[in-house]
Amino acid sequence: MLFEGSEKKLEVVVATAAGPLRALGEEFWKSLVESVGAQILSKLSRADCDAYLLSESSLFVWDNKFTMITCGRTTLVSALTGFLKRISVDQIDAIVYERKNEYFPRMQQTDFYSDLDVIQQVAPGFAYLFGHAGEHQLFLYHLDRPFKPSRSDVTSELLMNHIGGLAKDVFTKCNQSAQDIRAHLQLDQIFPGFAWDDHVFEPCGYSVNGIKGKRYVTIHVTPQDGGSYASFETNVDFGESLPEVLSQVLSRFQPQSFDVVTFRPDDKNVEFHAPDYGRTNRIYEHLKCGYRVHFTSHYLVNSAIQSAQPFGV
Amino acid sequence: MLFEGSEKKLEVVVATAAGPLRALGEEFWKSLVESVGAQILSKLSRADCDAYLLSESSLFVWDNKFTMITCGRTTLVSALTGFLKRISVDQIDAIVYERKNEYFPRMQQTDFYSDLDVIQQVAPGFAYLFGHAGEHQLFLYHLDRPFKPSRSDVTSELLMNHIGGLAKDVFTKCNQSAQDIRAHLQLDQIFPGFAWDDHVFEPCGYSVNGIKGKRYVTIHVTPQDGGSYASFETNVDFGESLPEVLSQVLSRFQPQSFDVVTFRPDDKNVEFHAPDYGRTNRIYEHLKCGYRVHFTSHYLVNSAIQSAQPFGV
Repeated sequence: MLFEGSEKKLEVVVATAAGPLRALGEEFWKSLVESVGAQILSKLSRADCDAYLLSESSLFVWDNKFTMITCGRTTLVSALTGFLKRISVDQIDAIVYERKNEYFPRMQQTDFYSDLDVIQQVAPGFAYLFGHAGEHQLFLYHLDRPFKPSRSDVTSELLMNHIGGLAKDVFTKCNQSAQDIRAHLQLDQIFPGFAWDDHVFEPCGYSVNGIKGKRYVTIHVTPQDGGSYASFETNVDFGESLPEVLSQVLSRFQPQSFDVVTFRPDDKNVEFHAPDYGRTNRIYEHLKCGYRVHFTSHYLVNSAIQSAQPFGV
Repeated sequence: MLFEGSEKKLEVVVATAAGPLRALGEEFWKSLVESVGAQILSKLSRADCDAYLLSESSLFVWDNKFTMITCGRTTLVSALTGFLKRISVDQIDAIVYERKNEYFPRMQQTDFYSDLDVIQQVAPGFAYLFGHAGEHQLFLYHLDRPFKPSRSDVTSELLMNHIGGLAKDVFTKCNQSAQDIRAHLQLDQIFPGFAWDDHVFEPCGYSVNGIKGKRYVTIHVTPQDGGSYASFETNVDFGESLPEVLSQVLSRFQPQSFDVVTFRPDDKNVEFHAPDYGRTNRIYEHLKCGYRVHFTSHYLVNSAIQSAQPFGV
């Protein structure tokens, strides 16, 4: 009954000559999603963006870019190889593939090393490891091609392990209603004016996509016993307010530990300190494709004494 | 070139009727060690204990007990099944099998779940998980049999990840001499009067066993890039001085993070706080076989900013 909440992410930016990606049609995106082992559950469409809720996380498609995020045992690299069969790699401006270390790596069909072997065949690039073996880690690949992200091309991720407090009750309760979860998350407070699409999974789990213009936010919660996980990601550039936003999201989940990952086109650093959490694993890299990536890990310090978890008998 | 430093540990206590274990002879222990995929490198023998240095960690044999610790890709459970072919499970007083989460779990031949399947066939018992998925974890099994550890049956482990500072230089330098490493460790200061046996591995790595009467200490250092690891373990009962001893060992390795595991026959708790480290994952369990086990994880807080690690190109 273990479910892997940790996610893989694929971002592809295409040149204008590749044509608007949304014109490729829903059948194309459906087949791409299915190739990784996921299904489309619903679609929210606005002038600048199509947002798909997936059985394993989310897909956002703009005319010049798509971002696919998948959890579980999905093989996200298949979406890249499938995409490159339709759009030649010559028409690609940038590719970033990111993979968080898993809770249950032996249940995965691939690891980042084997993913990389496949990717290098179709789109040679560079790979980095953020973080130490045995700790929170982020694996990252990008295409070997000069790219200049726009000034507003900022992405922030808050990756939360082992949710606690009230959040644990809200998300693990059986037959929970979307309305109760929305009331707990209060996302309109942080993202006013966004259009929303959400889904409550059986027996538990919650996903929500929000879009407004070219901006998105997405949250995925896998509250399963043995390894609960919640991810928050947005391309809204909160600037110096980012720590306040992260604090607000954090208060909705109260995790045992979390990581912050930011992609920026500039050197503006995000210093985030959460009360009660100690920060370790501060990693910074200026990628050759233009993005500056910060990765920090934060652990609840002096957490309460707990019992061990009996199992397997 | 990745090497797994994290260890598995097997402890077996036999009834007097099983006869002195050291009388089983060196050939028997050699075959047991080889069955897990390791080799005996050397042997230090004293009145109460035989201490073997292995190609992957250590084996200690007393007349009524043995403790085998192995790292790398070894299959330590084979030593238990092999042992039980010679000594019937009816003649066993206690079995404890412990497995630390690995740096590179996908390189392992088994995981704790499959280990447990094998063990339950020959020696039914209970299993526990200390720690959360994705964080430092300890898996633990013990035989389902009443056992009363003696008052002095205390074991302390200090499991250190990603050694730093001077230790990094001392242990990763090629062609390092045992003498230089001994001068760095100064183990006589902490363990006066112990007999020592040590080994410097090619291209790097260091193991040392020390014994005095029925007491042992063992240290294993795998300083390989990509995941350095050092473990310290002793059955000397330092009582209230344990934090001071742990601090001294810690200062020799300056790790990025570490865990403390203690087995005691009583409720005397060990509270260890290291300056600069935040403590999380406090787990306590009173095992049905009599031992009280404490497990705490400690992370260096506000560690210096680092670059990501390029790889795979």
